[in-house]
Amino acid sequence: MIGHQTRRPGAHFLQLPGPTTTPQRVMEAIARPTINHRGPEFRDLTVEALEGIRAIFRTSGSVIIYPSSGTGAWEAALVNALSPGDAVLMYETGWFSTLWCRLARKIGLEPELIPGDWRTPVDAEAIGQRLREDKARRIKAVCVVHNETSTGVTSDLAAVRRAIDEAGHPALLMVDLVSSLASIDYRHDEWGVDVAVGGSQKGLMLPPGLSFNALSDKALAASRSARLTRSYWDWAEMLEANARGFFPYTPAINLLQGLREAIAMLQEEGLDAVFARHRRAAAATRAAVAQWGFETQCRDAAAHSPVLTAVRMPDGVSADAVRESALERCNMSLGNGLGQLDDKVFRIGHLGDFSDALVLGTIAATEAALAFAGVSHRTGGTEAAIALLTGQRAAQPGELAA
Amino acid sequence: MIGHQTRRPGAHFLQLPGPTTTPQRVMEAIARPTINHRGPEFRDLTVEALEGIRAIFRTSGSVIIYPSSGTGAWEAALVNALSPGDAVLMYETGWFSTLWCRLARKIGLEPELIPGDWRTPVDAEAIGQRLREDKARRIKAVCVVHNETSTGVTSDLAAVRRAIDEAGHPALLMVDLVSSLASIDYRHDEWGVDVAVGGSQKGLMLPPGLSFNALSDKALAASRSARLTRSYWDWAEMLEANARGFFPYTPAINLLQGLREAIAMLQEEGLDAVFARHRRAAAATRAAVAQWGFETQCRDAAAHSPVLTAVRMPDGVSADAVRESALERCNMSLGNGLGQLDDKVFRIGHLGDFSDALVLGTIAATEAALAFAGVSHRTGGTEAAIALLTGQRAAQPGELAA
Amino acid sequence: MIGHQTRRPGAHFLQLPGPTTTPQRVMEAIARPTINHRGPEFRDLTVEALEGIRAIFRTSGSVIIYPSSGTGAWEAALVNALSPGDAVLMYETGWFSTLWCRLARKIGLEPELIPGDWRTPVDAEAIGQRLREDKARRIKAVCVVHNETSTGVTSDLAAVRRAIDEAGHPALLMVDLVSSLASIDYRHDEWGVDVAVGGSQKGLMLPPGLSFNALSDKALAASRSARLTRSYWDWAEMLEANARGFFPYTPAINLLQGLREAIAMLQEEGLDAVFARHRRAAAATRAAVAQWGFETQCRDAAAHSPVLTAVRMPDGVSADAVRESALERCNMSLGNGLGQLDDKVFRIGHLGDFSDALVLGTIAATEAALAFAGVSHRTGGTEAAIALLTGQRAAQPGELAA
Amino acid sequence: MIGHQTRRPGAHFLQLPGPTTTPQRVMEAIARPTINHRGPEFRDLTVEALEGIRAIFRTSGSVIIYPSSGTGAWEAALVNALSPGDAVLMYETGWFSTLWCRLARKIGLEPELIPGDWRTPVDAEAIGQRLREDKARRIKAVCVVHNETSTGVTSDLAAVRRAIDEAGHPALLMVDLVSSLASIDYRHDEWGVDVAVGGSQKGLMLPPGLSFNALSDKALAASRSARLTRSYWDWAEMLEANARGFFPYTPAINLLQGLREAIAMLQEEGLDAVFARHRRAAAATRAAVAQWGFETQCRDAAAHSPVLTAVRMPDGVSADAVRESALERCNMSLGNGLGQLDDKVFRIGHLGDFSDALVLGTIAATEAALAFAGVSHRTGGTEAAIALLTGQRAAQPGELAA
Repeated sequence: MIGHQTRRPGAHFLQLPGPTTTPQRVMEAIARPTINHRGPEFRDLTVEALEGIRAIFRTSGSVIIYPSSGTGAWEAALVNALSPGDAVLMYETGWFSTLWCRLARKIGLEPELIPGDWRTPVDAEAIGQRLREDKARRIKAVCVVHNETSTGVTSDLAAVRRAIDEAGHPALLMVDLVSSLASIDYRHDEWGVDVAVGGSQKGLMLPPGLSFNALSDKALAASRSARLTRSYWDWAEMLEANARGFFPYTPAINLLQGLREAIAMLQEEGLDAVFARHRRAAAATRAAVAQWGFETQCRDAAAHSPVLTAVRMPDGVSADAVRESALERCNMSLGNGLGQLDDKVFRIGHLGDFSDALVLGTIAATEAALAFAGVSHRTGGTEAAIALLTGQRAAQPGELAA
Repeated sequence: MIGHQTRRPGAHFLQLPGPTTTPQRVMEAIARPTINHRGPEFRDLTVEALEGIRAIFRTSGSVIIYPSSGTGAWEAALVNALSPGDAVLMYETGWFSTLWCRLARKIGLEPELIPGDWRTPVDAEAIGQRLREDKARRIKAVCVVHNETSTGVTSDLAAVRRAIDEAGHPALLMVDLVSSLASIDYRHDEWGVDVAVGGSQKGLMLPPGLSFNALSDKALAASRSARLTRSYWDWAEMLEANARGFFPYTPAINLLQGLREAIAMLQEEGLDAVFARHRRAAAATRAAVAQWGFETQCRDAAAHSPVLTAVRMPDGVSADAVRESALERCNMSLGNGLGQLDDKVFRIGHLGDFSDALVLGTIAATEAALAFAGVSHRTGGTEAAIALLTGQRAAQPGELAA
Repeated sequence: MIGHQTRRPGAHFLQLPGPTTTPQRVMEAIARPTINHRGPEFRDLTVEALEGIRAIFRTSGSVIIYPSSGTGAWEAALVNALSPGDAVLMYETGWFSTLWCRLARKIGLEPELIPGDWRTPVDAEAIGQRLREDKARRIKAVCVVHNETSTGVTSDLAAVRRAIDEAGHPALLMVDLVSSLASIDYRHDEWGVDVAVGGSQKGLMLPPGLSFNALSDKALAASRSARLTRSYWDWAEMLEANARGFFPYTPAINLLQGLREAIAMLQEEGLDAVFARHRRAAAATRAAVAQWGFETQCRDAAAHSPVLTAVRMPDGVSADAVRESALERCNMSLGNGLGQLDDKVFRIGHLGDFSDALVLGTIAATEAALAFAGVSHRTGGTEAAIALLTGQRAAQPGELAA
Repeated sequence: MIGHQTRRPGAHFLQLPGPTTTPQRVMEAIARPTINHRGPEFRDLTVEALEGIRAIFRTSGSVIIYPSSGTGAWEAALVNALSPGDAVLMYETGWFSTLWCRLARKIGLEPELIPGDWRTPVDAEAIGQRLREDKARRIKAVCVVHNETSTGVTSDLAAVRRAIDEAGHPALLMVDLVSSLASIDYRHDEWGVDVAVGGSQKGLMLPPGLSFNALSDKALAASRSARLTRSYWDWAEMLEANARGFFPYTPAINLLQGLREAIAMLQEEGLDAVFARHRRAAAATRAAVAQWGFETQCRDAAAHSPVLTAVRMPDGVSADAVRESALERCNMSLGNGLGQLDDKVFRIGHLGDFSDALVLGTIAATEAALAFAGVSHRTGGTEAAIALLTGQRAAQPGELAA
């Protein structure tokens, strides 16, 4: 080692699976003066932002925008469509599915969590099976996480929809898109999702502070008779105010300014190109991980997440030590292991606004962090990533999945 | 009239009673790259922001910071400390007191609103009277708005506290500081307030998106047995996570970056100087209004708001026409009349970050807007304001009140 | 006086006759990452900036952009078109004409300065007279300042052109547009100017750091045989490199990014509307000055500058004391007196990007500064300005001049 | 190859040997409102900027700051200290030494350029030899480039000083630090340099638009009798105005705001740490180049530049094609070959504000660009760089030179 820097020059590499780096163009829009949220200019902003976000969800229905974190939108989905004591069927994909389940219980629902191993996607068949058993139709909603941010496993939402339909069960389908929205292919209307939950700080390339609910007509209908208490999260008041171009309370104006710009950028690139770019970065990252000799947390090749890669450290190796090296030596933040994965995995984010150069810099800096931390590994990970990105090496089965 | 501009050069004058203009220094902090909300740098930010905001509330107790609008913090105050069916005593100071009352009813409380005329402050005596009648102690909280943003009337919170104490009533005292925090003298501990509700987009000079609850020990104790459903707003989870320097869910990181900077600016100027600056601007504005020959919505000289002046238009004169002239001709936003004051008043904001030059520009542009709109008025308002600011004319009784 | 602020909250009012306030939109363009000055994106920038600036000068000829202050462009005009010992005829309009003359002498020319009183514009007739006397055609250039920034007097360039033509003299016409470009009507081709000198920090609304030479064919022809030493300022190398979309040395890339944006803003508003806006602000300012009972430095009603007003203080009154009050009490910078006008005048800038609200705020704050400084004056200046802007009072003869 | 992006998401990697990436903190300072260049706040800025830049040059003497590109400071060095017809001795290190020579001739000097091969540093011995031959002391200055930006070769300035001294020759020593200032160790006073020339857009991490002359007493003395024409570049006027805290003409105010911040950042890191960081990045880059199987343009191991690496392509391979791939596929700008090196080398910049992650990203993206462009090379370059940075591989002789 040649030298050791005691402070951290250079722009920080924020390679978390969210929040992600906000592009300059979006940050400029956010940093422009706050406008009058009751004036004509704001009305235009509301209309454009709502129209744009519907396109991102690929829905012709309504999308609600909250000034809150994604957790608020989780709560909003439940309190608007359900009543005290309703059973909801959830699936344990990892940390975030568990949190959503806990939230459901806390607000007076009766969630049932189908156990999972945190390494594989939602088993749609198990959901169908459970629904078929629910002869009494006690289950009012099925809630699944599209991309489990704690593990890097992406589930097949269309398959869940089919399982519900095949079971002939009337439950609503609610999905958490927090870390997949605008990064992984999602089709709200086509896939028949009833309530989708999104956040601003991932694929939308904004700072945290906005969250979303995309609704189906069925969800809206359900909300009319749903009896859980709600006020801040109330869809009805939002929709009524939005129809006039405004909000029922002061919205996060500056983030809305940024949202409009972020959506414009996504549309300029094209959503399909955005999704392909994420899959490509993920494949490159996994090629590096394989070369290093580590396992990914995801063990289903077809379910590898396009937006993050959770890397399992061998027994006895601290994942946090690698993250600390990455931070101290390379000025790069990697995501930590959550819940049962604490200190066992680190998570490399590859979502939002990035280039090949950034992806390669992230992989190379991770490889350097492994070395700095003294973690035994096979070198050549970055070369494998370069080979994959430049087409010198074909993607392996599963590498382009999800 | 010499010319007519069809577009609007120059920086916009955002003279609403909130959101206010965010100073460059604060906007820079907001526009800096989002940092890892689970990293060491963020922990420092949490600690500093919480310590700073406590000083702003003048409390040694806990303050909760939500990623939400102020409306969320209204809800948070109620759901943490109260149980379904609890009676709460509110006071109709104007539009916002009415909205808070409606919210209370919506989430399952039984609010009782003491009627007011929207032109005078809270009558502490009436509150004391009502509490004395409440032999059964059914009333669990008294909720009042410190500065009613719809009318420009400021109420005496210490007097409300005394009234409660003199009635020997155990009700909690909850106050809405949304448009007074960091602009009007407030002393959480000294005045014995149990829950105070604040927002980011007024005196704190931030864009909307953060809200606050300042708590007393009594409120915290009440929250332990309170039974209204809560999750996003739950104080207990916040306090537990904050104690470790973090948040239970992704906070509005960039706004927290801005909050730290805004607090530093307030402390550099000194809170008392900040309050005096607001009172001074208010006195100048009222001097102008008096010269123009209009009434302020507030008709209690001792209760004039330091942060906004609501100007009543004579019968038959559209206040919105004046606002439209201000916008179209002078590139300045004024606040509109809310609820029953729709089109009857316009509101001049003088809060947040401003200089004498800006105050005078606002007043002069309002005077110009009156002329552009063809509203009959006595000229000389701006001269009256200059005279007051420069000490050529003494402030009249009440002009420095509140 | 109610209070006294010891620091300066609020955005600063930079009411100098330059540098002016850079609009957010332009500052954003400047603050974007520096681009490769040898890459394709930069080539587009060069082409657009050059095309745009030609439209601002109203010329179909060449415009040179230097990374320098306006002083550099003064020098450039002379060294490219003239030879050692050449006589140049200049006219003393004020401080800046004197400086240009000094520069000419310093680089080896023989300037002759027609004396002026610093209160009236260029006397074209005197120039014509002098040229007619120059039978030997020793005078190679006539150099005049379009808008004398030290006095607020604007000269008639077309009249100077006519005087030269009527004298049948071959001298080049060189004009200083530093404080008039993009603020006062200027027509390079129509008026037959040979070399025009501009700067970025006035009507172009940019920070200082760019300067300009607009050329006629005659000037270009003269440059081919001119023998003053030149390298950095050499037109020929610039034009050759510009033709390929680049510069002969590293240009001020970020300011060019801003220039493109500033030009777009000017074109959106329309140059004629921009000029009218300046004249209107000037008339309002002069109405205030008249009401206060002061003289303007300009005493030719037809020559009042649209971009600044130099206000003469009565004998024994310090103009700098007013400026100091403006700064300390109102957070506003006014321009100081230069040269023989030191401490005798203050200068109010009304150029660049401004609204009626800002103009009125500037005037009102100036009136307040007079009061704070204890300078005896008639009040009502701001009212006079409001009356003028809103058409309640007709502009007096000369108020809309220039 | 998996996909092909048709536009360029992600932040651009500006890996030129200047201009470099301006850190956010510096760009914020630049984008703050322009301040009054005749006010007290500006005076403080002048004093701090001048004091700071002296520390960067490691001189207790005077430093001049020009609003110009570095080319202007080249000219300034010559015109202030020399007279028409003076001989100056220069050394051909590459493109920029040639340009400086051309400039000298253009302004009336008689430069003599000792030929070089563009691959090796200044031969101090040759300079000493030539000076010893100059019995008539016709040579008034020796001008050398510290770091030749076109080739990536750094010369030993102290050795040049010794050669002059050993020859007992009175010539001034002038050095071009444009691409070395604040990136490569430089000691103005200790090394006895008379005039040093710097620019803002390299190690100082600013956009282009400022340039510098650092002076010795001897240079100042020489300037008093030097007779080349000068005005804009005149040291005397600058020093006189600077002594009062101001400038003789409008300076590039916003860049000065940035300069103060950039200097603060350099001082926080420590100049020696900054220099070591550059050497380390250079060593990593050269390790990669060696592994790829290419030559660096520099063939003297002791003279490798810490700030850039010029990579020679094999015969028949277009360096520009690699740069185009880097731009189109990886969103990264690399420097092009200049003069005789056109299309034969590409230049990787590693200077200014960067982290290990950025260095590795640059190298990996360059390796990818080679592959995208179909240029035959040995893979593993990035691994070699990682090994070097992490200490798994010792730096080879010369890799840490200069």
